[in-house]
Amino acid sequence: MSLPATESPKSAESAVILTGDRPTGPLHLGHFVGSLRNRIDYQHTYKQFIMLADAQALTDNMDDTNKVHRNVVEVALDYLAVGIDPAKSTILIQSQIPELAELTFYYLNLVTVARLERNPTVKEEIRLRGFERDIPAGFLTYPASQAADITAFKAALVPVGEDQIPMIEQTNEIVRRFNRTAGRDVLVEAKALVPEIGRLPGIDGKAKMSKSLGNTINLGATADEIRAAVKQVYTDPLHLRVQDPGHLEGNVAFLYLDAFDQDKAGLAEMKAHYVRGGLGDSLVKARLEACLQDLLAPIRARREELAKDKSHVMQILKEGTAKAREVAAQTADEVKAALGLSYF
Amino acid sequence: MSLPATESPKSAESAVILTGDRPTGPLHLGHFVGSLRNRIDYQHTYKQFIMLADAQALTDNMDDTNKVHRNVVEVALDYLAVGIDPAKSTILIQSQIPELAELTFYYLNLVTVARLERNPTVKEEIRLRGFERDIPAGFLTYPASQAADITAFKAALVPVGEDQIPMIEQTNEIVRRFNRTAGRDVLVEAKALVPEIGRLPGIDGKAKMSKSLGNTINLGATADEIRAAVKQVYTDPLHLRVQDPGHLEGNVAFLYLDAFDQDKAGLAEMKAHYVRGGLGDSLVKARLEACLQDLLAPIRARREELAKDKSHVMQILKEGTAKAREVAAQTADEVKAALGLSYF
Repeated sequence: MSLPATESPKSAESAVILTGDRPTGPLHLGHFVGSLRNRIDYQHTYKQFIMLADAQALTDNMDDTNKVHRNVVEVALDYLAVGIDPAKSTILIQSQIPELAELTFYYLNLVTVARLERNPTVKEEIRLRGFERDIPAGFLTYPASQAADITAFKAALVPVGEDQIPMIEQTNEIVRRFNRTAGRDVLVEAKALVPEIGRLPGIDGKAKMSKSLGNTINLGATADEIRAAVKQVYTDPLHLRVQDPGHLEGNVAFLYLDAFDQDKAGLAEMKAHYVRGGLGDSLVKARLEACLQDLLAPIRARREELAKDKSHVMQILKEGTAKAREVAAQTADEVKAALGLSYF
Repeated sequence: MSLPATESPKSAESAVILTGDRPTGPLHLGHFVGSLRNRIDYQHTYKQFIMLADAQALTDNMDDTNKVHRNVVEVALDYLAVGIDPAKSTILIQSQIPELAELTFYYLNLVTVARLERNPTVKEEIRLRGFERDIPAGFLTYPASQAADITAFKAALVPVGEDQIPMIEQTNEIVRRFNRTAGRDVLVEAKALVPEIGRLPGIDGKAKMSKSLGNTINLGATADEIRAAVKQVYTDPLHLRVQDPGHLEGNVAFLYLDAFDQDKAGLAEMKAHYVRGGLGDSLVKARLEACLQDLLAPIRARREELAKDKSHVMQILKEGTAKAREVAAQTADEVKAALGLSYF
């Protein structure tokens, strides 16, 4: 997406952006296209906080807390490998900032149960997870936690998918209600930043690339894994013989090439050839594989290098978290002061 | 209530007891009988934490946060005036211990929305406050917050009224579920300690002495206020003439004398006279007034003395809170470690 021309990279006044991931598994090409690639740009323009949302991940992973713990360092490795620069972006671990839980606690007083139950994102996720009446309270209330994360850093921008816009609206309702209660603007409203390129489909052509659907290509995939995945990429089921005309709609090989191939002219030529017939899937897939191998080889190499010294990665997370905590603690102090909860 | 003979006052092993108040108004005789008097005993036997639950008070006082702030020091003055000794009891301010919010945050994952909605205490309080569907989320979820308060200090005993027993049960459900998740006993189950003498009726004979019903005698009441209140005390509406037999049932003057008069023999004699007739209400009330003036005069004097140096009171709260925070932070660390949320 294009950035406003008025933002200067070095400006101390640059807007705060909050983004992050639930550390429940390795990141994949879907994350790369949907968020990571943008974050590499954002870090030059905005004051970017990237949150490893381990506490939020527990809301539906209390039965596998090890998975969450383990993936914190794995996701951090993915971040660093793709080019997120800890000197430019502040990477933080959510659970290590108690002030985020504190803010959540107070925001729970500013939202009704009925309002949370009406939240379309929460409703959909409750349906997807099959919770029905046995919704953990922490799951129903996670919009308050998300409001805490966003407001703790006074984020003005939050990159989200279209389906997450109601979460930002919920945050802003809490912000407005808090500021009204406080009688002054303590908290900042946030804007959803919806990227132009949305979701990458899975290799099987399913709408979404997702770990749970098993249709991903991970950022740390080996050359063999990439090769095997590309072989499985869904193309045009009607394109049975080389000489037949092929279709581009829903053709994952071409969708991926659109997302990753830098040689737009060459790609346009290949598409035309495919559509008029005479081009086999194997050549398209060969081009896609070359493209993905080129993209992922340096990421994998950096990831392997970084993984040799995980204590260094943890040190980066420790420093980022400490820096982020200062900001969040300042906000929590302001919030508590506005609620009359300052004494000493 | 009688204390178990096996507990030694000086034992480092003595059980932890957690008690406290929502600082929404001055404490009154109902608090004195229902809790304060017991706490003065408990502090010699147990490791007692007394919490000023300002954060919990906000769940239904977001429209008057000043009231909560103001009453923190007022309730602390009441504590010190009745004889709670900060060298023996740890007095703490809830909002100043972020670890309590942190524990609440994680416990929310261990209780379902349906379970919270079934909690009889919560149900009744929602009804009393007329919330209907517009229940603040913080109100529905406050059993998780109460579980945080109790478990943070590893309290084995929690003095509560009969109606609060479901809250302790809810805490213990969370404790068991957490320990099962952790695979070891990190948290401690608590026992409700229901005092033998329960609630003191209001001066108007209503079931409960309560600020909102305007039927209280405050601990800091002046001699004139006590005199005026005793005049209004509800007696026997059928006892119209001095020579008529009087009734003791529901007779607030005698209920108060039962609670406060140390001269049990003299009181028994007066009761007999009243029942057989020939004793006017004015004499009963004179005895009650003398009794209450004797009880409250030294409390009022100590309260006035302490109120001259509120910064000293705040220093006591600061030290108590710091001491309590160390304990709560230790528990929060254990809880987070058990959930795999330790990294550095």
